[in-house]
Amino acid sequence: MDLIDEFEILLGKANVLTGADTAPYSTDWTGKYTATPLAVLRPADRDQVAAIMRLAHATRTPVVPVAGRTGLAGGALAEGAVMVSVERMNTIRAINPTARTATVEAGVILSRLHDAAAEQGLSFPMTFGARDSAMIGGLLSTNAGGSNVLRHGTTRALCLGLEAVLPDGRVLDVMGALHKDNTGYALRDLMIGAEGTLGIITAAVLKLVPQPRAHATAMVALPDLDAALELLNTLQETSGGAVEAFEYMPDTYFRRLAFCHPELRPPFKQTYAVAVLIELGATAPRDAATDPEGRLPMTSLLEEALARQMETGKVIDAVVAQSGAQRAEMWQRRELAAEITFSRQPAVDNDIALPLDHVGTFLARMETRLPEIDAGAETITVGHLGDGNLHYVVWPTLCGDAIKEAIREAVEDEVAALGGSFSAEHGIGLSKLSTMERRKDKVALDVMRAIKTALDPDDIMNPAKLLPPTG
Amino acid sequence: MDLIDEFEILLGKANVLTGADTAPYSTDWTGKYTATPLAVLRPADRDQVAAIMRLAHATRTPVVPVAGRTGLAGGALAEGAVMVSVERMNTIRAINPTARTATVEAGVILSRLHDAAAEQGLSFPMTFGARDSAMIGGLLSTNAGGSNVLRHGTTRALCLGLEAVLPDGRVLDVMGALHKDNTGYALRDLMIGAEGTLGIITAAVLKLVPQPRAHATAMVALPDLDAALELLNTLQETSGGAVEAFEYMPDTYFRRLAFCHPELRPPFKQTYAVAVLIELGATAPRDAATDPEGRLPMTSLLEEALARQMETGKVIDAVVAQSGAQRAEMWQRRELAAEITFSRQPAVDNDIALPLDHVGTFLARMETRLPEIDAGAETITVGHLGDGNLHYVVWPTLCGDAIKEAIREAVEDEVAALGGSFSAEHGIGLSKLSTMERRKDKVALDVMRAIKTALDPDDIMNPAKLLPPTG
Repeated sequence: MDLIDEFEILLGKANVLTGADTAPYSTDWTGKYTATPLAVLRPADRDQVAAIMRLAHATRTPVVPVAGRTGLAGGALAEGAVMVSVERMNTIRAINPTARTATVEAGVILSRLHDAAAEQGLSFPMTFGARDSAMIGGLLSTNAGGSNVLRHGTTRALCLGLEAVLPDGRVLDVMGALHKDNTGYALRDLMIGAEGTLGIITAAVLKLVPQPRAHATAMVALPDLDAALELLNTLQETSGGAVEAFEYMPDTYFRRLAFCHPELRPPFKQTYAVAVLIELGATAPRDAATDPEGRLPMTSLLEEALARQMETGKVIDAVVAQSGAQRAEMWQRRELAAEITFSRQPAVDNDIALPLDHVGTFLARMETRLPEIDAGAETITVGHLGDGNLHYVVWPTLCGDAIKEAIREAVEDEVAALGGSFSAEHGIGLSKLSTMERRKDKVALDVMRAIKTALDPDDIMNPAKLLPPTG
Repeated sequence: MDLIDEFEILLGKANVLTGADTAPYSTDWTGKYTATPLAVLRPADRDQVAAIMRLAHATRTPVVPVAGRTGLAGGALAEGAVMVSVERMNTIRAINPTARTATVEAGVILSRLHDAAAEQGLSFPMTFGARDSAMIGGLLSTNAGGSNVLRHGTTRALCLGLEAVLPDGRVLDVMGALHKDNTGYALRDLMIGAEGTLGIITAAVLKLVPQPRAHATAMVALPDLDAALELLNTLQETSGGAVEAFEYMPDTYFRRLAFCHPELRPPFKQTYAVAVLIELGATAPRDAATDPEGRLPMTSLLEEALARQMETGKVIDAVVAQSGAQRAEMWQRRELAAEITFSRQPAVDNDIALPLDHVGTFLARMETRLPEIDAGAETITVGHLGDGNLHYVVWPTLCGDAIKEAIREAVEDEVAALGGSFSAEHGIGLSKLSTMERRKDKVALDVMRAIKTALDPDDIMNPAKLLPPTG
């Protein structure tokens, strides 16, 4: 019997897509890659995923697990492989307001979880532009980041437990709702961020936190990145760690934003080389209640800190949102980042992380180095400065892959020299395989390969992703 | 040439202890285990550790890495193995107040790091009773917990990067000071909590946080554990997540404390079935500045929350510390826990974690189940209630190992039925091997063994710890 027939018996004909029906699954939203899956399987539950993997294991069929397919690294492409989409496994099994946990299946869309938590006055504090499409299984598999990592950590930090189907169809159950569990190796953390190369995450228990009752939000211009880090540290101290976002948006970003969206009002009368979007979240009622003058304590705190820094020239200009509409306007400018950085091609995009105190050094070094490669090259940068995470995009003016490669190498050189990472939050997928080979600690790569071989000896789980081929 | 001679050439004679010189290393402070190491090696640096492991690998010599040897699970015992003590690798390489990181070697004693961070107005927020002996390498290898996990997470959450020597002597360098790094599998998190079975952690970059400027501390009696969890959630909301400790100290604990330390003043005029030690940390200056009546805002906030809960009977009694001396007195009672729970033998001690809303159910079920095994058995419980972590100790009155085993099984049954963990923070070591075999998800155990075999095929790294023998 043909493999497709066997999958149809397992899942029903309607949930085994082949031929033209797989077209919507043959590319991702970056448009950078296309690939034709052998078939797209849509299991209803964990047991069907396990049955799929047992069959794939027996027949050595490559399997690519996918969720919302909003990744930026090509990890969900499935050339010549069976794609397993968790989209139908979309039940929010429980929101527990007392223990502050959510138990969800891998196909739950992020914004649905946001809404379900909000109904209980709670928040799942992971968010980013693709929240209406991205699914929990993808967030976990890529250890997704976003704008609130500063306060609440990456997806890994928000996951208490999970279950996953291994490459041979066995189910790994580390699904506890536990804040402490020292019973052996950190398998949960190993599955998170493995980009589907070690198994298929099918469900998870996630942490919820109190929903902020109010926000204090500002756009702030600064003389340099050292002043930005000083402001961040000051705000963390004065607010008791309430800074939720600290987003870098320099002049290069605002110029492109104005070009693509001339209808948007700029935040300042002029552009500044260094600007950040800052947001503090007030969960305590005392911080959400306005004072006799109608001001929120968090807003006053933010304004006072900015005024103090302004006196010594460490803040140049600042606009504090005075309404929800002004806050939304500030965030709209930030959330157009993916659109506007992809709006010009060719682009060499780099998702990098640096030690917090080395971000400015990196940018300064690139200002010298980039013109040596391509005198006319422009950059556009945006990023999560509080995490040391920049999306540093270069638009070359000279043609050819060699120039792009030279730019990429220069970025990687400087990142490596400063102890940084060449993939902060987007992961490796297909897009960073060669960088992974060149730049990752060789012993770390060997250890990863040893783990991969131990758990997936036939290399059927999302093959040729994350780990570069050997030899 | 004899192996000891070769180690002497590598490290110098003074740093290779044998015979009677190994006596201080032949037991740990629990006194439960003794073991005779072949030799105790005291390398000066990572390269010496690597040289030791290359030699051990070539000769298939078992190696047990140790640090402060304050663990409770026997993980640092080295019968017939070479012990590698990181005690001489005790340099604090850097405290970076701007990036808020500490770069430390594995042999740095925890309280020394506390002091070094405090000099910069910062805090390494992991603490527990053994802080004057415990070393960073041990904290990392056991993913240590303690009293502030509620706010800051376990050791794993406080580590940004590390380096480790693998079983074959290669060095794994994932030593970045990065808040985000999605370049492959979570090897840092895998090494943390592996109890030295996958390699020897030699140095790490740790997170620092602002030092609390003031504390609000109270002893609170409650009608039941549901009321305790409600109070915790209320305090987290009203304080904006400033609860640093929420420690369970019931009547059984205070009775034993009074017996062992009659000189200590009890917190209340009577004992209560459910009591907690609560501490809020104020990092923001506004929370550390006293109001016109000389009161700290965090203290007022705590008192107001307690008063509100008292009105509805959800708090029965409360004492709020009015001075540093009163705060110290409250913590002294808590920090005697290890001493007083070990003060009576035989004792069946269980370091368990439960979902936050199931802790009361567990204790209620044990109240029924325990007398069926041993009618006279007494319990003493203390724990980190905010993390769902109980140290549940039973003193049997009937003799024999069978009774102890029956008690242990009953605890494990109820923990498993409620989705809990049989080792919350102490780890597995030698002491929980049989429980690991019986209770850990079988697939998880297989995955751990596959990883162990892949990285340490000759089983020379802390053999016979953490993973129960097969077959």
